[in-house]
Amino acid sequence: MPADLPKLVTALARRARAASLVLATASTDQKNAALTRLAVLLDSRIPASTNALLAANARDLAAAKKNKLTSAQIDRLTLTPPRIAQMAEGVRQVAALPDPVGEELERTVRPNGLEIRKVRVPIGVIGIIYEARPNVTIDCAVLCLKSGNAAILRGGTESFHTNRMLVEIIHQAIADTPLSTLDVRLSTSAVQLIPTTDRAALTTLLKLDSLVHCIIPRGGESLIRFVAENSTIPVIKHFKGVCFVYVDQDADPAMAERIVVNAKVQRPGVCNAAEQLLVHGAVAGTLLPRLARALLEKKVELRCDQASAAILKKHQLAHRSAKTADYTTEFLDLILAVRVTPSLEDAIATINRDSSAHTDAIVTRDTAAAQRFLAGVDSAVVLWNASTRFNDGFEFGLGAEIGISTDRLHARGPMGLRELCSYKYVVTGSGQVRG
Amino acid sequence: MPADLPKLVTALARRARAASLVLATASTDQKNAALTRLAVLLDSRIPASTNALLAANARDLAAAKKNKLTSAQIDRLTLTPPRIAQMAEGVRQVAALPDPVGEELERTVRPNGLEIRKVRVPIGVIGIIYEARPNVTIDCAVLCLKSGNAAILRGGTESFHTNRMLVEIIHQAIADTPLSTLDVRLSTSAVQLIPTTDRAALTTLLKLDSLVHCIIPRGGESLIRFVAENSTIPVIKHFKGVCFVYVDQDADPAMAERIVVNAKVQRPGVCNAAEQLLVHGAVAGTLLPRLARALLEKKVELRCDQASAAILKKHQLAHRSAKTADYTTEFLDLILAVRVTPSLEDAIATINRDSSAHTDAIVTRDTAAAQRFLAGVDSAVVLWNASTRFNDGFEFGLGAEIGISTDRLHARGPMGLRELCSYKYVVTGSGQVRG
Repeated sequence: MPADLPKLVTALARRARAASLVLATASTDQKNAALTRLAVLLDSRIPASTNALLAANARDLAAAKKNKLTSAQIDRLTLTPPRIAQMAEGVRQVAALPDPVGEELERTVRPNGLEIRKVRVPIGVIGIIYEARPNVTIDCAVLCLKSGNAAILRGGTESFHTNRMLVEIIHQAIADTPLSTLDVRLSTSAVQLIPTTDRAALTTLLKLDSLVHCIIPRGGESLIRFVAENSTIPVIKHFKGVCFVYVDQDADPAMAERIVVNAKVQRPGVCNAAEQLLVHGAVAGTLLPRLARALLEKKVELRCDQASAAILKKHQLAHRSAKTADYTTEFLDLILAVRVTPSLEDAIATINRDSSAHTDAIVTRDTAAAQRFLAGVDSAVVLWNASTRFNDGFEFGLGAEIGISTDRLHARGPMGLRELCSYKYVVTGSGQVRG
Repeated sequence: MPADLPKLVTALARRARAASLVLATASTDQKNAALTRLAVLLDSRIPASTNALLAANARDLAAAKKNKLTSAQIDRLTLTPPRIAQMAEGVRQVAALPDPVGEELERTVRPNGLEIRKVRVPIGVIGIIYEARPNVTIDCAVLCLKSGNAAILRGGTESFHTNRMLVEIIHQAIADTPLSTLDVRLSTSAVQLIPTTDRAALTTLLKLDSLVHCIIPRGGESLIRFVAENSTIPVIKHFKGVCFVYVDQDADPAMAERIVVNAKVQRPGVCNAAEQLLVHGAVAGTLLPRLARALLEKKVELRCDQASAAILKKHQLAHRSAKTADYTTEFLDLILAVRVTPSLEDAIATINRDSSAHTDAIVTRDTAAAQRFLAGVDSAVVLWNASTRFNDGFEFGLGAEIGISTDRLHARGPMGLRELCSYKYVVTGSGQVRG
């Protein structure tokens, strides 16, 4: 088998490409019929597929326990009937979203009479490389189907049997979908799972740039870096979220407290949680103790620069000295690095140097300061008087999210169905030739 | 020097990054002032820079003659006062284009009152890797400046001295540009030339993904492939243009002749020239001889499949037998591969398999057939009753073009100033936190 791996992955990608060409011109109704059928199959009212799924998941869970995964890892891996029902609900929500394909983005008529339309179309074949969570299998397959893209999924070893069963259920849903009015049948090759977690299969996939058009890695930084370094296919990614809140000299103190605490503690393990606090020197003496008290009450560890440490020491508030690495660290925990900054300009420069260009916020009542911050901070999402936690596809009204990009090409910030699309130019003439 | 090359290139990229942050918030007026000054310096009314440029070019030309470059290569390399004036005119045209930066792409107000604006911003730092032509140096620098991006240029060995002098003149123009109303000075590091054509410098550059945000390679397929395979930075590219014209059974014969001839012969050496002709079997017997006569009159060599060869043989029209490779070849010459196709569906499938997804056209009076072709052919630009030669930034009304992309992410088809931009989300709140 390993000797044939490149051949096997290439054949799979060829099938995906063929399926993508059919899917690209499928009607919204036909795609939604497949999604609706999938939701029904996942629903616990169909015990056959639920039971098969729970059995497959039990195999993965047994292996996980044997391999001594942490309880958090095992929890992420575990499927239960309510969690399966939640998956089904997610599928129904995507079915209800507007179809991005076919939307006219621009239209011009040139002096020579040529009509030029820029129309949204699927990207084609998308490879999604992810780690443990089995719900990613359904989320990604469904978002790709809805946006007319074929999906090649490569999940983690831990959820291998669960993923295989999920893809079988997706295939069942596609096979159950009626023909379109043009007698077109969707192909089950529209969603395929790479049937091994051998790294060689991944390495082969990442070089198939004539068949696969986009790679989306989801997971830890080392996986994402491996993919970015080995892919000749364009990759959309985000490495990490080192997000800042800057409290300006003209910040409303109560609002600053509310936003800093929310950005740090509401869900510290996610990429849009704040990891870094900057406070303007003119107000640090009065405001920082208030912020620190509120954070300490929520069990946040404060890692301070000299200036902020001196203020907290004076007020006998607990803190530690920050190391240089803390200023660029994604803690994903109840830890916050704290610095005093002499000016707005310094805050902007600090953020542009130390943040991961993911999500950065200013708290201020000063409109001019806010405008300079929003223009000058070169990050995917910049916020004025709001928590960093709002950088999210659902909060932005996209209805769904396949990830958050810190790249600058194609998609930046939360990625929904539209960001899974490309466009093409459709030109209509009446015999024009170029002179 | 070679030992220090990675350090040198990294330092250069760091300067570019710093310059890009200033340039990103520069006003349209300030950017246009720099461009207008550059046009003046390039204008022959300033003999100092023209003479310096001609002297630098003479050094490259002497080397080119010594290295026995072809006369076509030497011609492409040669600068003359009229060619320099033409460069200046191109710079003025870009200055006159609307600034893409700051344009609001979307705006929503969420139920919680958050205002979310999607705003066009520069990408950041763009690396442009190209070969001989010195005019690319000016074109790319100017398009990057106008769109607020810092440019790192890596030209070919043949035009090294010319490029160096061109970048000196660009630096002069930037240095001559007045301060903005905010006392901001544009940095000459906004446009930098890698001071060596050593491959090691290029390899270093292609890995600087924390400083450089996009790579645009321009040139032959092998250069582009080298860049795509070695870059961890996103690359926007097109490998080649294997463009098709499909003449449907319901094509207007005179229009088919006009479009096929124009697509093939009007400028055969460019990527949007047709290389492939498909003719529907129902009309090949009558239409193909007419098309062949018109093409033969223009000295086009026809490389035919069996069916088309039989028809041309019957009419005693010159042709050769095609080899399989001809059906996917970019000839860039007066050569056309010719096939008879049994149906519209077969034509679409053939194009999706054999074309480079660059530019493909149908000639037909049948609206339904045209709609199926335009939807089913998965190429950057699809045309109905118009020549493939129209896939061009100027013809599309973009005003300028940095290249044509056959990628599907970020930009597809002709790329102008807008395609040199990313976007960011600017969120304005009144203290919102996430519950």
